Amino acid sequence: MEAYEYLEKIRAAAPRVHCITNYVTAHDVANMILACGANPVMADEPQEMGEITAHAGALALNMGTPSERREQAMLAAGKAANANGIPVLLDPVGVGASAFRRKMAEELLEAVTFTAIRGNMSEIRKLSELAEKNVTGSSGGVDVCPVDVVTEETLVEAVTFVKAVSKRLGAVLAVTGAIDLVSDGQQCVVIRGGREEMSRVTGTGCQLSGLAAAFLAV
Amino acid sequence: MEAYEYLEKIRAAAPRVHCITNYVTAHDVANMILACGANPVMADEPQEMGEITAHAGALALNMGTPSERREQAMLAAGKAANANGIPVLLDPVGVGASAFRRKMAEELLEAVTFTAIRGNMSEIRKLSELAEKNVTGSSGGVDVCPVDVVTEETLVEAVTFVKAVSKRLGAVLAVTGAIDLVSDGQQCVVIRGGREEMSRVTGTGCQLSGLAAAFLAV
Amino acid sequence: MEAYEYLEKIRAAAPRVHCITNYVTAHDVANMILACGANPVMADEPQEMGEITAHAGALALNMGTPSERREQAMLAAGKAANANGIPVLLDPVGVGASAFRRKMAEELLEAVTFTAIRGNMSEIRKLSELAEKNVTGSSGGVDVCPVDVVTEETLVEAVTFVKAVSKRLGAVLAVTGAIDLVSDGQQCVVIRGGREEMSRVTGTGCQLSGLAAAFLAV
Repeated sequence: MEAYEYLEKIRAAAPRVHCITNYVTAHDVANMILACGANPVMADEPQEMGEITAHAGALALNMGTPSERREQAMLAAGKAANANGIPVLLDPVGVGASAFRRKMAEELLEAVTFTAIRGNMSEIRKLSELAEKNVTGSSGGVDVCPVDVVTEETLVEAVTFVKAVSKRLGAVLAVTGAIDLVSDGQQCVVIRGGREEMSRVTGTGCQLSGLAAAFLAV
Repeated sequence: MEAYEYLEKIRAAAPRVHCITNYVTAHDVANMILACGANPVMADEPQEMGEITAHAGALALNMGTPSERREQAMLAAGKAANANGIPVLLDPVGVGASAFRRKMAEELLEAVTFTAIRGNMSEIRKLSELAEKNVTGSSGGVDVCPVDVVTEETLVEAVTFVKAVSKRLGAVLAVTGAIDLVSDGQQCVVIRGGREEMSRVTGTGCQLSGLAAAFLAV
Repeated sequence: MEAYEYLEKIRAAAPRVHCITNYVTAHDVANMILACGANPVMADEPQEMGEITAHAGALALNMGTPSERREQAMLAAGKAANANGIPVLLDPVGVGASAFRRKMAEELLEAVTFTAIRGNMSEIRKLSELAEKNVTGSSGGVDVCPVDVVTEETLVEAVTFVKAVSKRLGAVLAVTGAIDLVSDGQQCVVIRGGREEMSRVTGTGCQLSGLAAAFLAV
């Protein structure tokens, strides 16, 4: 199925996408989901996650501006999604930035089965380390480390890595940047559509995660 | 008084509008209030509600992205507004989405006297059910249910309903959508200015509630 | 060094700026920091402040939409910044609006050494009162009080005041409005570049504070 056919399906079905996302880019994520024809529901009160998630077509969990309360909401929503057969996407924003985020990601990976994970290469490397219980230090930030940027020179190695991590995590993996790599563990699609300028506006990754969750819903 | 005269009054008085609102559209709500000539104060720490609300010309309570803490803030601010004769507007965002929101709305309706309530027809139907202690299930979402959309065919019935709910809740009711209905319990104004496109941008309802609160302040 | 040279330095160094800021304007603050060539990290979970701040080039603390949790984050981040020699900027949004904000500012001023403080004249007056333990009442709002607006008539008095407060607080002080005053306690620069229209858009002050923190980082 082509991308435009997916968009037509989204516009026809207008699925609800439940987002638990950071307060910095929540507004743009909601508008991105609306722009592609789906309906965002932004909600993060742990006590209402069961009902909100159960009525959604997809769930997107974004780890930006994390808190204990938001983590509880993500765990509750993720379990509700799994129990109801609703696809779940994880955006592990800045998972390497602190011990708090690493622990949060570990708990999410243990408690929730993810359909898809989208992040930059540094975030995906950190998730892979967490899955292997072999974690290096904190980075303090949310952007890709220069050493992790995918280039034509590192492409073959990167593809092998992304396929392996996708298989290990049991989720479709979208590693985005100047070159995007998307893998289901078997195949890996390479997309050379990135623009360096996208890193100069906040929230493009968060918006892509919201958009991807809408695609999962149809 | 005409609408433009109200705007002139707002610009002349520049009243403060205290908003307790969701983090998704807070930025647009603040800018909408500024655009009409009033001054937004966005604050939701329960401990400071007494002082913040008492110095405002109107209070707007928006139930999007609810939390226990934000509910406590709304209760404190609503009581402070009532004690000081300051008009209060309720925007019951997604009140039918979960038991948590229904309980929150019930507690707000019991503790606070509202001057005005603005929502879509599904939200107002749910508030009416809450007032009648006759609640049906959860919807999980924040948008109007298709069956509740006001059309020329359902207009007479809708007007009767809105007048009755306005009377029962003791507040001016603004039910907005493609056709807007505004009632004080006696009369009901029908406004055919809606555009279907407005549902494709997030926060238009929240902004209208902020704007309406500014009108209440003069 | 000229302003454009500072911008070139920021673009070359691309320093990280850790912001603990209100949810109303966080999105614009992040984009402003990106626009000047620095990298924003928006995070407010107290448990991760040590790591996040230690990896940043500057820290910006913005008191809008305060909460107990956000105050704990600011205290932890401020101490981590001081321990690591990282410059810290305070934006005391609406510090005169409530007893809660005054106590928060007092605790921040006691626990953290600030490199710079940016606010409107009403906020800076309130900080000065707090430093002198001579506080008047609450204002309930976040905008400058008319009586505090700096004009050509009150300029000499305002300059003397700003220099004295800068010396007392031990921080560079930027008092912004139609006329900006910036002082290090010895000198005071007067900038007549303000536009009254800037008060009709939310978050221009918050964005300036983010921008100023990026300048502190190089």
